[in-house]
Amino acid sequence: MQDLDANDITDAVIAQMADTPDPRLREIMEAAVRHQHAFAREVKLTPEEWLKGIAFATAVGQACTPYRQEFILLSDILGLSRLVNAMHDATGREEVGTETSLLGPFFREQAPKIALGGTIAHVKSGPEIVLYGQVTDPAGKPVPDAQMDVWQTGADGLYDLQAHDPSVMDMRGQLRCDAEGRFHFRTVKPIGYPIPMDGPVGDLVTHQNRHGFRPAHIHVLISAPGYRELVTALYFGDDEHVDSDTVFGVSASLVVHDRLDLPDAPIPGLPSIRYDFTLSQESGSGGGRVGSDPSRLAPAG
Amino acid sequence: MQDLDANDITDAVIAQMADTPDPRLREIMEAAVRHQHAFAREVKLTPEEWLKGIAFATAVGQACTPYRQEFILLSDILGLSRLVNAMHDATGREEVGTETSLLGPFFREQAPKIALGGTIAHVKSGPEIVLYGQVTDPAGKPVPDAQMDVWQTGADGLYDLQAHDPSVMDMRGQLRCDAEGRFHFRTVKPIGYPIPMDGPVGDLVTHQNRHGFRPAHIHVLISAPGYRELVTALYFGDDEHVDSDTVFGVSASLVVHDRLDLPDAPIPGLPSIRYDFTLSQESGSGGGRVGSDPSRLAPAG
Repeated sequence: MQDLDANDITDAVIAQMADTPDPRLREIMEAAVRHQHAFAREVKLTPEEWLKGIAFATAVGQACTPYRQEFILLSDILGLSRLVNAMHDATGREEVGTETSLLGPFFREQAPKIALGGTIAHVKSGPEIVLYGQVTDPAGKPVPDAQMDVWQTGADGLYDLQAHDPSVMDMRGQLRCDAEGRFHFRTVKPIGYPIPMDGPVGDLVTHQNRHGFRPAHIHVLISAPGYRELVTALYFGDDEHVDSDTVFGVSASLVVHDRLDLPDAPIPGLPSIRYDFTLSQESGSGGGRVGSDPSRLAPAG
Repeated sequence: MQDLDANDITDAVIAQMADTPDPRLREIMEAAVRHQHAFAREVKLTPEEWLKGIAFATAVGQACTPYRQEFILLSDILGLSRLVNAMHDATGREEVGTETSLLGPFFREQAPKIALGGTIAHVKSGPEIVLYGQVTDPAGKPVPDAQMDVWQTGADGLYDLQAHDPSVMDMRGQLRCDAEGRFHFRTVKPIGYPIPMDGPVGDLVTHQNRHGFRPAHIHVLISAPGYRELVTALYFGDDEHVDSDTVFGVSASLVVHDRLDLPDAPIPGLPSIRYDFTLSQESGSGGGRVGSDPSRLAPAG
């Protein structure tokens, strides 16, 4: 007969999961139970608080739609996404590539293809800027023909997925770098924006007295055969929240400034940013994206 | 500029939550972040595994309906509900009352009222048994007029909420004990049953090679002015899973056997169970139910 108090319930649960055939699932679930129980014991979680937690998790799940992933947002504001990212960055690389940043909930597969020098601002307009640079390996050797996805808010602080008709793609594009790894494209300067504040995660952030803003940034995803997929973002140094990102995505090496005085700017007269990306060699473990197209996670209902 | 690696991200998140006005919310969220990050670091959670976790949590949330609470089920099979219950039992009581057990996801407010000696089997039939006894305080003094809610599966192993028309209440009732705290009612003998296996929590239990069964039991909730609300259940000792409950609800003191030889059985000729319940005095913190009517937690959609 199991007579379990608050101290031995943990071992009883782990014992009941001991026959899990997949050793990794067993390892993860055992650790999850140990840490979850340690949390509940540390704060002496009451039944009322437990019930609030159940209601919160339920609300987060029910806020997910094909165009919104509230659990990724929760992971982001709790720093879990950044932590998983940081651990992934530190593994399996022979040399150091460009630092990564969060994929976030707004990536979409099959963005419109644009030619080098084209613009990703198809619908919305605003002050134009140019992003250009070169993709190389850690030794500085050009990576030819890398594929680059870029996506960002418009000058209104909104992604296309947040527009009235989220099926229209805008402020995102897919381009192919040239044989020397060079790229350049036009866009409008994004502005910082709050995370979606109308759901349970926004409620939590409000109750925590956090501003809820991300600094202005441009997401970049680069892939090329033989190299680890790079998921990163460039952050604008003139944004007031560049030091207090609500989802902890900023690294110093990813902060940029648009300038008019760059001698090799490909489109003179427009504020420009030069950023050179470094891809690290593919390791055995393969690439991994912290985040995903929400339509691949939420049921279509 | 925040340049965060896997070790200092935790402090950065806690710093950003430091202005939370409600001190208890701050305490709980700080501990949640520390334990969650410690878990991710211990198992070296990969981006692919993180994404599977996001998809799992999303599926659990989306499985919740007005008649189903999948997050409570998840809490139950991970032993968290039992842990919160056990901590609650250990607080604020001057004397020891009857041990508690999980409320579970099938409690409903305003069950049909029945008279003493009546039956809670309104629709479904099966082998009849009688439950009777007395409600007292820890000194053995009768508690007059206590209100008692009871609910259980039928002999088919299903609750009314799992029936074709879940709006019909059956195998549950509300009765009032007499001035001496005595009660008796008729019901059918419940059988053990698996937790709902057609959702993400059932998938997890299957992948863990767990049988997924709860032993046969009758839920009991007793309240009386001045006493702590008692949420418990009586478990049948002849059930094969009485020692391996999937949700860790069984305690030795709650195991019962129906017998034909009880001299004070109020309805002779029917297998009967005598169980006397002891209510502890109300403490300042009030009662708390680990579990709740799912219709109070899930959006009505």
